[in-house]
Amino acid sequence: MTTVTRRYEFSASHRLHSPELSDAENARLFGKCNNPFGHGHNYVLDVTVAGAVDPSTGLILPLPKLDNLIDETVLKLFDHRNINLDVPQFAERVPTTENVILVILELLRQHWNAYLGDTAAQLLHVRIQETERNFFEV
Amino acid sequence: MTTVTRRYEFSASHRLHSPELSDAENARLFGKCNNPFGHGHNYVLDVTVAGAVDPSTGLILPLPKLDNLIDETVLKLFDHRNINLDVPQFAERVPTTENVILVILELLRQHWNAYLGDTAAQLLHVRIQETERNFFEV
Amino acid sequence: MTTVTRRYEFSASHRLHSPELSDAENARLFGKCNNPFGHGHNYVLDVTVAGAVDPSTGLILPLPKLDNLIDETVLKLFDHRNINLDVPQFAERVPTTENVILVILELLRQHWNAYLGDTAAQLLHVRIQETERNFFEV
Amino acid sequence: MTTVTRRYEFSASHRLHSPELSDAENARLFGKCNNPFGHGHNYVLDVTVAGAVDPSTGLILPLPKLDNLIDETVLKLFDHRNINLDVPQFAERVPTTENVILVILELLRQHWNAYLGDTAAQLLHVRIQETERNFFEV
Amino acid sequence: MTTVTRRYEFSASHRLHSPELSDAENARLFGKCNNPFGHGHNYVLDVTVAGAVDPSTGLILPLPKLDNLIDETVLKLFDHRNINLDVPQFAERVPTTENVILVILELLRQHWNAYLGDTAAQLLHVRIQETERNFFEV
Amino acid sequence: MTTVTRRYEFSASHRLHSPELSDAENARLFGKCNNPFGHGHNYVLDVTVAGAVDPSTGLILPLPKLDNLIDETVLKLFDHRNINLDVPQFAERVPTTENVILVILELLRQHWNAYLGDTAAQLLHVRIQETERNFFEV
Repeated sequence: MTTVTRRYEFSASHRLHSPELSDAENARLFGKCNNPFGHGHNYVLDVTVAGAVDPSTGLILPLPKLDNLIDETVLKLFDHRNINLDVPQFAERVPTTENVILVILELLRQHWNAYLGDTAAQLLHVRIQETERNFFEV
Repeated sequence: MTTVTRRYEFSASHRLHSPELSDAENARLFGKCNNPFGHGHNYVLDVTVAGAVDPSTGLILPLPKLDNLIDETVLKLFDHRNINLDVPQFAERVPTTENVILVILELLRQHWNAYLGDTAAQLLHVRIQETERNFFEV
Repeated sequence: MTTVTRRYEFSASHRLHSPELSDAENARLFGKCNNPFGHGHNYVLDVTVAGAVDPSTGLILPLPKLDNLIDETVLKLFDHRNINLDVPQFAERVPTTENVILVILELLRQHWNAYLGDTAAQLLHVRIQETERNFFEV
Repeated sequence: MTTVTRRYEFSASHRLHSPELSDAENARLFGKCNNPFGHGHNYVLDVTVAGAVDPSTGLILPLPKLDNLIDETVLKLFDHRNINLDVPQFAERVPTTENVILVILELLRQHWNAYLGDTAAQLLHVRIQETERNFFEV
Repeated sequence: MTTVTRRYEFSASHRLHSPELSDAENARLFGKCNNPFGHGHNYVLDVTVAGAVDPSTGLILPLPKLDNLIDETVLKLFDHRNINLDVPQFAERVPTTENVILVILELLRQHWNAYLGDTAAQLLHVRIQETERNFFEV
Repeated sequence: MTTVTRRYEFSASHRLHSPELSDAENARLFGKCNNPFGHGHNYVLDVTVAGAVDPSTGLILPLPKLDNLIDETVLKLFDHRNINLDVPQFAERVPTTENVILVILELLRQHWNAYLGDTAAQLLHVRIQETERNFFEV
């Protein structure tokens, strides 16, 4: 199996605050990430696709097709946005990077066939870097 | 002249919007950066200090002194904050990185003597990286 | 199982063009990568080797042995070369990074025993970075 | 399964020399790394933890708990130390990065429950980068 | 004075060969870079612009204007090209990165007013990274 | 004026301790860097050379000549060494990076003519990165 990983970036803001916890618990658990007006990050998103190499083109898949999927279903939703206020999936979910990656995974699965159903490529792996010190993967 | 540059990081959110421009002009000038609820970045701040090397210690200055200055006067104000809403200097100023660097320069000049007046080190240069594609310097 | 990954670099040029497709199909599929006189990249090659740690040396394998294998069988062939015109394996194969990685895998398997047969190390993984935005793995 | 990887750094010195080999064999096997007074590196340590995302907090685990574990059991032992002379586990072991990673794995397993036993997180993966060209994983 | 630096990338191929030197001299001077069919690099171009910060916008200049200049006059000419064969300025000039940077400087000076004449920004500095080990500046 | 910067790396160990200070003063000033058995770093050395571009070769200078100078006079002395015990210039000098850069500058000036006197290139700038957070320049 051969894979290709393509890197995307988006800038977004968020505030970590759980409605299921008291204010004191939120402050203790999330620390500075609980500051009321939020803060932000440059997120780096790596999407890994697996598949056989087509002998006539030498490609697993044409990358512009993957770019379209990510642009339309992920970047439009998250780039230059406030995750708490702009992204409907986070109306009642804490916008930790763990949850962001699960929502992105859901979106990619849901729209995969519409964008990439005519290729033999399969989604293998999603990874987000929140800062140079924290990475999350599914 | 010898210099030492020390790197700091902070995560913050902002919205680019000038009260002197109409909504349409703001949208045209700032594009996605004008989105109403803001977005954010991992900012990288490099502070360069110049001075002679002390022959008995081999140092331009003890770096923990510089760290104290930056922690107390810059990072406390900007890290994990919404620049528009949390930083008083931006109550009426557009929080572009150009303006952020000018405010930081002002803060460092104002507090330099209190933190570093007993050393011979001088502030030479400030640089902020907003994303991997944009850097600003004074 | 413990692994060691070692990083190598090579600079090469290529043109993506499939003899099985018409000129118009090549232009549509490969875009700028189909420009007639080619272009180039700094490729980063990561080779991952797995094995037990030898208790008397603390090593999986002596790394100069791996360097010899890569230098002699991969870098001599690809570094500072035009992949289409200089590398015989690409006389009739499109030099996409997918195909480059498959050719390198083939070369490493073929020459592994001659260079590393006296160690217990096994080839686990090969990864090539074509640009900071595209990675390929087998 | 979702994972979070957190990056730590430590600076340490070492000399590669095996008591089971002659001086000539040590010099041949380890080259410059066998120089009598040692040399050093900035080591980068990535610790990957796997687990389910807690629906009320959106977290796999509170990262300060992981930081405590690493600070107390790994960084205190290795950071700004001479691995041969300061770290008891290397009294009779060659301080190759292969052995450093095995010792760190042992330490994390031994202290995991005391620091992280009240979470559902599990240690998945440890990776050390010795230089930009060499990485080791277990 | 405040500056903004913006990073661009292009992939190109080249062959170092001077018509004023014999084949043996070319081989000795340029080594592998003289290989007949050429090789390539991912070039990283940093353009630094200096100017006053406009108080009503907080900007030195609107960056899309700079992007237009670079896209139209530099990237169109060099990206995914063979510098020897595709770029007219190199018909009789050796495509070393020193010469590439001088040609880019010339192009930016020549087209500056058409793209940026309505701003107060001035070109300060151009830097190209050919590989992670070589940088060139004017 | 055009410049070329070339990057070199060396791994070394050191202990910060000044004979002019008491043990308590050394501990307070240098903290963990004063640990008795030392620690180490991967140092990154950038050497910047300025000069006119030779019209017949397109080069400021042949880089292998610069490599020879750095290999013979700097890397042989510092790479895989204990700076306190292996480098004679530090017999009575504290091996801070400030002092390392001054010693390297001295060595380059002293040997410049022997290696590069037949070129028009001039030494402009030396920069050392000790960790990703600290840089020093002359």
